[in-house]
Amino acid sequence: MNDLLVQVREGNIRAIARVITLIENSDTAAHTAVSYLYPYTGKAHVVGITGPPGSGKSTLVNGLAKQFSSEGMHIGIIAVDPSSPFSGGALLGDRVRMQDLAAQEGVFIRSMASRGSLGGLARATLAVVKVLDAAGYEIILVETVGAGQTEVDIASTAHTTLVIEAPGMGDGVQSIKAGILEIADDLVVNKADRPGAMRTVQALEMMLHMGQVGPIGHHGQQYETAITNEELNPRNWQVSVLQTVATEGEGIAALAQRVHEHRDFLVNSGGWMARERERSRKELSQLLQERFMARLVTAISSEDREAYVDAVALRELDPYSAVDKLFKQIGE
Amino acid sequence: MNDLLVQVREGNIRAIARVITLIENSDTAAHTAVSYLYPYTGKAHVVGITGPPGSGKSTLVNGLAKQFSSEGMHIGIIAVDPSSPFSGGALLGDRVRMQDLAAQEGVFIRSMASRGSLGGLARATLAVVKVLDAAGYEIILVETVGAGQTEVDIASTAHTTLVIEAPGMGDGVQSIKAGILEIADDLVVNKADRPGAMRTVQALEMMLHMGQVGPIGHHGQQYETAITNEELNPRNWQVSVLQTVATEGEGIAALAQRVHEHRDFLVNSGGWMARERERSRKELSQLLQERFMARLVTAISSEDREAYVDAVALRELDPYSAVDKLFKQIGE
Repeated sequence: MNDLLVQVREGNIRAIARVITLIENSDTAAHTAVSYLYPYTGKAHVVGITGPPGSGKSTLVNGLAKQFSSEGMHIGIIAVDPSSPFSGGALLGDRVRMQDLAAQEGVFIRSMASRGSLGGLARATLAVVKVLDAAGYEIILVETVGAGQTEVDIASTAHTTLVIEAPGMGDGVQSIKAGILEIADDLVVNKADRPGAMRTVQALEMMLHMGQVGPIGHHGQQYETAITNEELNPRNWQVSVLQTVATEGEGIAALAQRVHEHRDFLVNSGGWMARERERSRKELSQLLQERFMARLVTAISSEDREAYVDAVALRELDPYSAVDKLFKQIGE
Repeated sequence: MNDLLVQVREGNIRAIARVITLIENSDTAAHTAVSYLYPYTGKAHVVGITGPPGSGKSTLVNGLAKQFSSEGMHIGIIAVDPSSPFSGGALLGDRVRMQDLAAQEGVFIRSMASRGSLGGLARATLAVVKVLDAAGYEIILVETVGAGQTEVDIASTAHTTLVIEAPGMGDGVQSIKAGILEIADDLVVNKADRPGAMRTVQALEMMLHMGQVGPIGHHGQQYETAITNEELNPRNWQVSVLQTVATEGEGIAALAQRVHEHRDFLVNSGGWMARERERSRKELSQLLQERFMARLVTAISSEDREAYVDAVALRELDPYSAVDKLFKQIGE
């Protein structure tokens, strides 16, 4: 493993792919890789790109990657697909996309599908971002389908988040999920040559004016925050509604420019560091809980644990009292 | 509080409303209420109803409540709306719905909006289900918007889950979120008098045949499961695609009948108890993690915790080593 990690730092593509596979298959590997590589991370600009199926996200991400690549940058793409374990679409899509981008120097693509828990997927994605960061990729595009809290969580660990919509999906912008708009640094209406595009743009702009769009902070934290929303989202950044036709390359250069501007803005305003702290906070909280659960599983036999579950299900014990007893049993 | 809880068991509506407010505002109240009421729970049939905005969910839920009420049952409705804290729509909607259902005996409605964390909302919703169960409501309809993992989690704690779709939302059934179809015990195409209804029904039926619909178990568990998927979802239950026009009351009686059949099926097949155990397992897992985080917050000052966050953000410490140190500091 250590040889591999040295090669990762040198940007060796085979080593990077190998380490990512190890991370996907084992939390221990993730631990080892992150501990080793972490000091070399922190340089990459992590851009989350999320939107509903059918919005043309993948084409847009490919277009952005080509644009950044033509500017001489090294680009990592992580496509997160937690949807169906049946599809196998992730791997197939990978191959198609690889062909499309094969001519581009310095673009690394990896799809990550759910194999087991969503928490595991989010954890693995965070680790893979660090691998690509330490390997010298300057921009890392993290593409998620924007369907669930896990994807919102993943997107919200990015420095910059783009939310993609397409015209005519549902009634106006209904297809955008609760909680997704709130993490957008910019909105993109893709397929902007289609009928209804202006209506979608106007609806999003109206939501902007009503204050329903734009980062308002992050949900579900348990390791409570001391970072104010204003630190995370310094003033003077105006969320825009951009239009693209990714299949034709239209609007991609302008979007790429906007991504650079947001990075500069964050660095100059202090927002970059605030978002790093927020990401660190979430990661600590997550790892702490996992460590605790692992400890519980070690300390209490599965028969004992099942007995508690049964007692609660049968109403012999209420859940709070069961937790009291479990805590006593692990010696708290 | 104890007086209130006695009154809850007697079905006193003011006491129920008061206790729910206390639960929403304090985890301690939830603890007290659940500990007291838990032995009296386990009788209610909990039905999760989820679907995208615009699918006519609320009208459908009201229709179901009227139907069950006309059969002489007591019905609780919990409408979970974690979307925007800006809207205030939950309360307004409540009043409108209350008027609609005011004539019905024995229907209790409560909306729950996110005030802070999504985890808190899910926890409060589970507690409120227990309050209504102990108060003697025989069917509890839990309505969620189906937008995020939290709603999937809430819906997945129900005995029976209905997923609602409407015709012409996006391309076929794209508006249904990943992970939502998999928890459906039945699918409902509401607004079935609209153009495109047959196409939506056919698309859902095709997904059924392809095995992409129907309960395949639940994600994200950390307190690992010993319940097989077959136990949770005994064979011989065929997920159906039903059609309703809730505004006209069409199809509601048939849907209500189907809900009763699913209850009978679960009870006879052993699925009821398997789902109770699964719910208990999730609840224990959740409470254990919360208790642990509360302990951490007590044991380590917020300055110390912030220092760890800063060190990780500045790459002076990797997250895994930080967790090692935090665990040592709380004496593990």
